[in-house]
Amino acid sequence: MPNTTGEKIKIGVIGASGYTGADLIRLAACHPGMEISALAANTHAGKPLADVFPHLGFVDAPPLVKAEEVDWSSLDAVFCGLPHGTAQDIIATLPESVKVIDMSADFRLKDTSTYAKWYGREHAATHLLEGAAYGLTEHNREAIRAARLVACPGCYPTATLLALLPLVAAKLVDASDIIVDAKSGVSGAGRSLKQNILFSEAGEGLSPYAIAGHRHAPEIEQEISKAAGANVFVNFTPHLVPMSRGELVTCYVRLAGGHTAADLAAALAERYTGEPFVKLAPKGTLPSTQFVRGSNFCMIGVYADRIPGRAIVVSAIDNLVKGSAGQAVQNFNLMFGFEETAGIAQQPLFP
Amino acid sequence: MPNTTGEKIKIGVIGASGYTGADLIRLAACHPGMEISALAANTHAGKPLADVFPHLGFVDAPPLVKAEEVDWSSLDAVFCGLPHGTAQDIIATLPESVKVIDMSADFRLKDTSTYAKWYGREHAATHLLEGAAYGLTEHNREAIRAARLVACPGCYPTATLLALLPLVAAKLVDASDIIVDAKSGVSGAGRSLKQNILFSEAGEGLSPYAIAGHRHAPEIEQEISKAAGANVFVNFTPHLVPMSRGELVTCYVRLAGGHTAADLAAALAERYTGEPFVKLAPKGTLPSTQFVRGSNFCMIGVYADRIPGRAIVVSAIDNLVKGSAGQAVQNFNLMFGFEETAGIAQQPLFP
Amino acid sequence: MPNTTGEKIKIGVIGASGYTGADLIRLAACHPGMEISALAANTHAGKPLADVFPHLGFVDAPPLVKAEEVDWSSLDAVFCGLPHGTAQDIIATLPESVKVIDMSADFRLKDTSTYAKWYGREHAATHLLEGAAYGLTEHNREAIRAARLVACPGCYPTATLLALLPLVAAKLVDASDIIVDAKSGVSGAGRSLKQNILFSEAGEGLSPYAIAGHRHAPEIEQEISKAAGANVFVNFTPHLVPMSRGELVTCYVRLAGGHTAADLAAALAERYTGEPFVKLAPKGTLPSTQFVRGSNFCMIGVYADRIPGRAIVVSAIDNLVKGSAGQAVQNFNLMFGFEETAGIAQQPLFP
Amino acid sequence: MPNTTGEKIKIGVIGASGYTGADLIRLAACHPGMEISALAANTHAGKPLADVFPHLGFVDAPPLVKAEEVDWSSLDAVFCGLPHGTAQDIIATLPESVKVIDMSADFRLKDTSTYAKWYGREHAATHLLEGAAYGLTEHNREAIRAARLVACPGCYPTATLLALLPLVAAKLVDASDIIVDAKSGVSGAGRSLKQNILFSEAGEGLSPYAIAGHRHAPEIEQEISKAAGANVFVNFTPHLVPMSRGELVTCYVRLAGGHTAADLAAALAERYTGEPFVKLAPKGTLPSTQFVRGSNFCMIGVYADRIPGRAIVVSAIDNLVKGSAGQAVQNFNLMFGFEETAGIAQQPLFP
Repeated sequence: MPNTTGEKIKIGVIGASGYTGADLIRLAACHPGMEISALAANTHAGKPLADVFPHLGFVDAPPLVKAEEVDWSSLDAVFCGLPHGTAQDIIATLPESVKVIDMSADFRLKDTSTYAKWYGREHAATHLLEGAAYGLTEHNREAIRAARLVACPGCYPTATLLALLPLVAAKLVDASDIIVDAKSGVSGAGRSLKQNILFSEAGEGLSPYAIAGHRHAPEIEQEISKAAGANVFVNFTPHLVPMSRGELVTCYVRLAGGHTAADLAAALAERYTGEPFVKLAPKGTLPSTQFVRGSNFCMIGVYADRIPGRAIVVSAIDNLVKGSAGQAVQNFNLMFGFEETAGIAQQPLFP
Repeated sequence: MPNTTGEKIKIGVIGASGYTGADLIRLAACHPGMEISALAANTHAGKPLADVFPHLGFVDAPPLVKAEEVDWSSLDAVFCGLPHGTAQDIIATLPESVKVIDMSADFRLKDTSTYAKWYGREHAATHLLEGAAYGLTEHNREAIRAARLVACPGCYPTATLLALLPLVAAKLVDASDIIVDAKSGVSGAGRSLKQNILFSEAGEGLSPYAIAGHRHAPEIEQEISKAAGANVFVNFTPHLVPMSRGELVTCYVRLAGGHTAADLAAALAERYTGEPFVKLAPKGTLPSTQFVRGSNFCMIGVYADRIPGRAIVVSAIDNLVKGSAGQAVQNFNLMFGFEETAGIAQQPLFP
Repeated sequence: MPNTTGEKIKIGVIGASGYTGADLIRLAACHPGMEISALAANTHAGKPLADVFPHLGFVDAPPLVKAEEVDWSSLDAVFCGLPHGTAQDIIATLPESVKVIDMSADFRLKDTSTYAKWYGREHAATHLLEGAAYGLTEHNREAIRAARLVACPGCYPTATLLALLPLVAAKLVDASDIIVDAKSGVSGAGRSLKQNILFSEAGEGLSPYAIAGHRHAPEIEQEISKAAGANVFVNFTPHLVPMSRGELVTCYVRLAGGHTAADLAAALAERYTGEPFVKLAPKGTLPSTQFVRGSNFCMIGVYADRIPGRAIVVSAIDNLVKGSAGQAVQNFNLMFGFEETAGIAQQPLFP
Repeated sequence: MPNTTGEKIKIGVIGASGYTGADLIRLAACHPGMEISALAANTHAGKPLADVFPHLGFVDAPPLVKAEEVDWSSLDAVFCGLPHGTAQDIIATLPESVKVIDMSADFRLKDTSTYAKWYGREHAATHLLEGAAYGLTEHNREAIRAARLVACPGCYPTATLLALLPLVAAKLVDASDIIVDAKSGVSGAGRSLKQNILFSEAGEGLSPYAIAGHRHAPEIEQEISKAAGANVFVNFTPHLVPMSRGELVTCYVRLAGGHTAADLAAALAERYTGEPFVKLAPKGTLPSTQFVRGSNFCMIGVYADRIPGRAIVVSAIDNLVKGSAGQAVQNFNLMFGFEETAGIAQQPLFP
């Protein structure tokens, strides 16, 4: 076990010039068992990391190179922060000896026709799909531990599924009547240039987007359906909020079998007892993105609705940490035998 | 009719040191038919307006005085921006000759026991309640025009009811299954000092608040129930968003009678044809608070849900304008025979 | 005089898809004497205005067209919100009958070699330069009134010169030792896509930019030198602040001739007596961008320094209004005989 | 040496309910050699930490108690995050065996009359003043290592002195003509309720404050004067910026002895070679608060001015970390023999 020998795991990051890649590097820099051995970012190849992310100029890291220049066989693990499509193309070429933690969307959907429909292209690495473990750590530890390829969930699915999976699985709520009103900070839209995420456009304002058409909807549906044992549609309506980080989902559920909101809270509390990163909000505190900012924590709360027979489940995470790079490190820790909290025990940054 | 004689209406503002009062003064300063004759704000009595609101230092306005110092009989109209409770106490003392546009919550709820339950005190001016017109302009013009006392709706009810009333009344949606996920900028919390609205607490973060317990819920229910012809509960879940102004409600509705989202859109478009301040978002545009900031406009959109038989209705306003001071001026215009758009035709401030 | 006949001035806007153009349209929509007759924006030709600026979807305006499609001879006035370079090329082709209010940088610098050095190209419309009036309204009214072409100042020069010109001209401060630490909201960077103005990059952060190399430096120096009667260099150091609108300059000056900060304040107060848009901050209030947001006002304050013989002069404006579109309308009003405040009397939007 | 034995240092935090205290706890929770043994916060005594700071609800920490309830003799070190005045009163009562890292202003000024003048009360623990080491780590290591009481600098002095002390000491700049235009995020104003730091007041706006009267001015002057060998006044003008964290100072200096901006840069680079937390911005990067957010780093840049004989020195820190709690931990590490970076090696959080 590497964590006992003290030998470091050689990691590479593909897509090092995106926010997801940057947050991975941020965490890797302080991880006791990682050595950053390669950083790939095709459009910025040849530059020092500090040119692309000045805030990482304090990290001791190799310069960015093109993906084809990396000697993958010298690495133990690769984190992939590329956009979908590109991700599968590169991952398919990596040597079997390298474990892969993919933060893209490419290996999340098990059904290739669903993938093709939502992502606009045929899946080109279907042979890897079956072995890919869905990386929602708290709900799939054994598979993750054993996997060579882990598909980390999308940020919205992470927040949503942590809140709902135990309730659906226990049939405490009606899986066919779930409404997820989601709110995300702007970093969720990535670093590529789009007018609607300019400061002057997104600042001091709030808007929904991709109503009934966001790619995280089929991912949520896949997992909810699996837990429910039946195919369901889920309402998923994301909103863009004028903050950089943070994600909060407000889930409106119909109670099943005469259960109450208190039953839901109790079920979640029991399910997550002992979990280092998932907690129910204490009495008097409402889940808020401020309370998990910059951390790998997820805070969940359950509330009775005014409409009889309904309840509200709220879940907050940092979209770039538990929603992406942090959960990727958590999965890495499982895969390589580290303490699950290694490198991601940082407390939230507030204010 | 005053607007033809050119004689100005003498107005007073009570509660001139709150945000609602300030926005009323901002609009009044440019209104062609208003003369600001008295500004009352007990805790700041004796100060010039510029001391309390430096941004209004360019306005030609009298200094703040205590309410008891105002000669009400010299005024034609009074806008009340006081907190509930205090509002009714003062309004009850005003001479009959003064028309009152109340922006507080005191005369919105028709049922005094509901008022007592939600506002924690018995109503002390019940004799004025019956004559008070509910000031949702587009839905109550005749009563407003004739009223001496107008109770302007809360900001959330304004955004919500403009979107839903026509749908409920036409039985296009099931009134008993309405979920309103609401988001507001921080100015909605007022100017009094509370820790959770400090910049460092509310900034870069998002949280729900008052889940299933917000005072705008019974107000929404009162109007929805009236339109539906049956008493209903409505889910109303507000969230605090890190922006100063703006309010957006995302309403999740169950379609009735085999209707579609397109039917809802058509019904709203028809209902608001010719309305100067309420518009459906054009194809390709999603309602966003940025697009109505600082203006009296409301922008509404209707979208099909992924869950069959459901739809999503989104409505955006500026909480301090259409949600408060602007609608108050709109009602004033009706009450005093001005063009309905007088003084509130300002376009949104973007970026 | 048009303002007495009631006939409207037919205006066109070139560069209607930028923030400057948008704010001009916002103001024009409520101006009593303007009729928006043409909107040109080459890259968006063919679209309705609402497609490019949804917040202006409430305005009755013609669709966007290419500049070459506009019948300029049918217009009375053209506002130009194009980038420098492109601006002069189009302005040079306009018929003599059209008055031009240019919000670009093309006609601000009188010295063509300075222009070439700072803007990277030879000036291509030098024949128009001499007749162009520098549009700092309060300091150049007669020339503006008589001009066919007005070159509105840059936003930073507007804030800086309103604060310093009277002091330099009266020799109250040493023109050769002026330090201008400037701070601007992000809208000053325009609407074109640049990584550093993405919400996630500019939000929750502060940075200087273009130190000792910003194009507004030579413009400030030109006017300060003219007032001083000697060529001077001025330190001008801008910073990008995480807000959409607003600009504040903190000017550090060395007192001349034994004068005091109080003398400076008195000189400014006297100079701007009766001015509708420029005011000294009252005692107890510090100039803040919040207090002028969305308005054409400029708020100035003068303070003694801890270093003997020095003073601090602070000036705040809205960069898009007094710093651009608002001052353009103010100049238009002078050129066409309207009340100087017509269409720009809106009070600041706070909060 | 504790760091070799592995025995943890028992720490207490006084003033645990302020932002400074909270950030200290955040860092302490992940420090390899700290055990949080006592948290004092008089107004919140009896509450769990999570009630006061929900984001710290994941930390294993004792509940808050009154200062008088703490058994100080059981502790090894105390961090004090109290306001000035209160701080000295409590610190004076602590047993000699406890080492004290004070984050308040009480032991920064060596001259008691200066203290009395600026802080409005006589110093009540003057016997501790002489032994108190000024905690600007990089410039006072030996004294800090040996001290029982360390007075951590103010946030503004930290950013300013790191940038200027080496330049003044080497007589590269004229100590009598230093202008420090400072900008801070709102957390610098603390957590107590004040109107100007409400989100709706401070958001989307920028203002100077405490011009020529901020308490950090005499602190900066004390240290600059010491380095210069002569008493000087320094211009220090702070501004409130709409962000939660971060601080940037733009220092305008007059070059001495024919030196150039490049000489200054070289002197700083040499001075800070090997320092883990202070770095010069690489070519092409301007110091920005985003690039140090949440970290203990300081980023400095030097630039030539347009005015001949002048230069500009810019320095950026996180006001709560290097400007307060982080530097306190850095000093703790020196005092107790830990690696200087222990517990504060976290990389900046961007975006």
